[in-house]
Amino acid sequence: MARRNAFYAQSGGVTAVINATASAVIETASEHRDVIGKVYAGRNGILGALREELVDTGKESRAAINALKHTPGGAFGSCRYKLKGLEESRAQYERLIEVFRAHNIGYFFYNGGNDSADTAWKVSQIGRKMGYPLTCIGIPKTVDNDLIITDTCPGFGSVAKYVAVSTREAALDVASMAETSTKVFILEVMGRHAGWIAAAAGLAGEGRDQAPHVILFPERTFDQAGFLKRVDECVKRYGYCVVVASEGVRDADGNFLSEGGTRDAFGHAQLGGLAPRLADMVTSELGHKHHWAVADYLQRSARHLASKTDYDQAIAVGRAAVKLAVKGENAVMPVIRRTSDAPYRWRIESAQLGRIANHEKKLPAGFIRPDGYGITAKARRYLAPLIAGEAYPPYSKGLPRYVTLKCELAPKKLPPWEG
Amino acid sequence: MARRNAFYAQSGGVTAVINATASAVIETASEHRDVIGKVYAGRNGILGALREELVDTGKESRAAINALKHTPGGAFGSCRYKLKGLEESRAQYERLIEVFRAHNIGYFFYNGGNDSADTAWKVSQIGRKMGYPLTCIGIPKTVDNDLIITDTCPGFGSVAKYVAVSTREAALDVASMAETSTKVFILEVMGRHAGWIAAAAGLAGEGRDQAPHVILFPERTFDQAGFLKRVDECVKRYGYCVVVASEGVRDADGNFLSEGGTRDAFGHAQLGGLAPRLADMVTSELGHKHHWAVADYLQRSARHLASKTDYDQAIAVGRAAVKLAVKGENAVMPVIRRTSDAPYRWRIESAQLGRIANHEKKLPAGFIRPDGYGITAKARRYLAPLIAGEAYPPYSKGLPRYVTLKCELAPKKLPPWEG
Repeated sequence: MARRNAFYAQSGGVTAVINATASAVIETASEHRDVIGKVYAGRNGILGALREELVDTGKESRAAINALKHTPGGAFGSCRYKLKGLEESRAQYERLIEVFRAHNIGYFFYNGGNDSADTAWKVSQIGRKMGYPLTCIGIPKTVDNDLIITDTCPGFGSVAKYVAVSTREAALDVASMAETSTKVFILEVMGRHAGWIAAAAGLAGEGRDQAPHVILFPERTFDQAGFLKRVDECVKRYGYCVVVASEGVRDADGNFLSEGGTRDAFGHAQLGGLAPRLADMVTSELGHKHHWAVADYLQRSARHLASKTDYDQAIAVGRAAVKLAVKGENAVMPVIRRTSDAPYRWRIESAQLGRIANHEKKLPAGFIRPDGYGITAKARRYLAPLIAGEAYPPYSKGLPRYVTLKCELAPKKLPPWEG
Repeated sequence: MARRNAFYAQSGGVTAVINATASAVIETASEHRDVIGKVYAGRNGILGALREELVDTGKESRAAINALKHTPGGAFGSCRYKLKGLEESRAQYERLIEVFRAHNIGYFFYNGGNDSADTAWKVSQIGRKMGYPLTCIGIPKTVDNDLIITDTCPGFGSVAKYVAVSTREAALDVASMAETSTKVFILEVMGRHAGWIAAAAGLAGEGRDQAPHVILFPERTFDQAGFLKRVDECVKRYGYCVVVASEGVRDADGNFLSEGGTRDAFGHAQLGGLAPRLADMVTSELGHKHHWAVADYLQRSARHLASKTDYDQAIAVGRAAVKLAVKGENAVMPVIRRTSDAPYRWRIESAQLGRIANHEKKLPAGFIRPDGYGITAKARRYLAPLIAGEAYPPYSKGLPRYVTLKCELAPKKLPPWEG
């Protein structure tokens, strides 16, 4: 089997552990030097292939590649750039193949979510059509946890842990202050289409009486009266109320609540966010003092609080991706198969990319409590093991020692891309 | 020396390590059983004394008191309740003394900031005037770091660490996404009157070229044109820009920028927050895609990321407070005296409450870079040791094992307070 090079790219929103997957891909490839030569990484994801901006990972030190395991973000740059249908974007697919051919790339590892699985799948088809032999492997990554077949997506467990821990901590703060000050605390978390992350906040407490007292899921239409009633009841019963709201919460007309619809003096839309909107409701309708937080990028980059389970799985899918490629599998993705909840047991299997692409895993209805404001025991069984264990980064002078790569590009061989 | 009881209360905004101080006070008192009997803690701070709601800490297990060391928030409840001048609020001060007398309380430990130092000082005066011997000790605590004399305030170092780490992490995220998506990230942090917390974010990078590229201090009047120019320059030069803004930023008229002045359809003021306001400016004026986060309570309750220095100092001031009381000092506060920057060396001294009360330590002008958007080497020398070291809490099933006390109240002996 002739030795060919590999191309690895990060796609879409980055996570606390996507670089751990990258590290595993690069290190595992180096254990198969008989079949895999260089590992190139796309500068800014798939754009790096289109632009022929290929980071030569062989120019990085072993220590730097190893340090990726504890470094959040996307070390080579990621991108939000979706290749469309094969006919519509034929020139782009052909350009990809040209670049791969110019650099003798026989392995394509694409680390992302649904869209990336779709792209990797299409690239495998076009390679075949163009008579260019190419092994295409998707590698799961998304904080949204919305890939089907796999038990979970690397990246999600760490966000889940961050949100659960932060909720538990902030709840202790509010409880301390409630007698004379803040009575309602609102934390806005990610999850535009599905409530996986919001659900994870439910792990912070044990039942209805413990914070978070209210979770707002995108799967439930926002009911202002019901929400305010529940908040007020909690304040009366517990002295305070902790709310965790998914950014994807919508009103009965299907509009995101975060888009307030108000405009400032210059006519600009007020990009208020959901949390301040809810907080304003609470104070104007119930008169309770509020505080609110929006975690945004902090939640998905919080490598300092990564879940050990998540970290282990991020490494495992990276290793497995290379092993699958070396075994000659094509157009597949390594997925996590759960075999036991407690103790949590899992193994890596492979799934056809075509089965995964363009599907979205929603939060099952059985995960949301009948009142709509909390999670069920079933949800806990699923979520709890995903946040288990701590995978701390090393620190120096009080700060995590995150690595920044040199990202030296391989010499170009083709004319510039005019895409 | 007759054995008398002690009263300990938490005041104002809580922190990641105020319970560590409480734990140290209770444990150290137990080493002096010859002079200190029971330790009562105020239920909801000083209100607990006025209402005669005294938590009998002797009813808690040793393990629970020890677990306070790694539990954020205020375990007995805190309050925002300021006793005014001695003449104006004479009845309240007298009530305090009555409650202390009824429970044979000879030691008053008040754990808070400027206001609390002032209250403890006044209580010591009224005790003398009323012929009731009382030892009053202030114990420093405030995330705002605004107490004079002491090198720093327990609570600040952990917020500083949280903000510096979160900024470094979010910066890696934005850098990964900037090519095709978010170019400007804005993190809003606490500090209504002084920029200590915002300054700490500066530790995340080494100089002008590293994130955070822009820090907005309350000590500098907000200059929209200058801000936008700097943000745009950063995006052009680095591809992205990370902004950390203190909630206390004001415009030339002295108004908080966070109070946007806009109103919704019902005439309610839009409580938009500073970060979304700045983000809106960036996108509408420069056209750059933004993301923003508001850390709010998350930053001051993040015990999972506490600074070891901060933790050690929180314990040290708690122990020292009791030692000072036992030695017969009165109307004093244990303070931290720095004797060396690197390596950081410090010791505990005592300072008169009267010197500390009602003063506010501002961020020195020499800590802010001449361009107004970053910190100086001098600021780094001061701040760096305060975030050093990690003091992780124990975890169970992926979550920190924080303790909730029983908070059993001692039987009341007086008629209800009618304050």
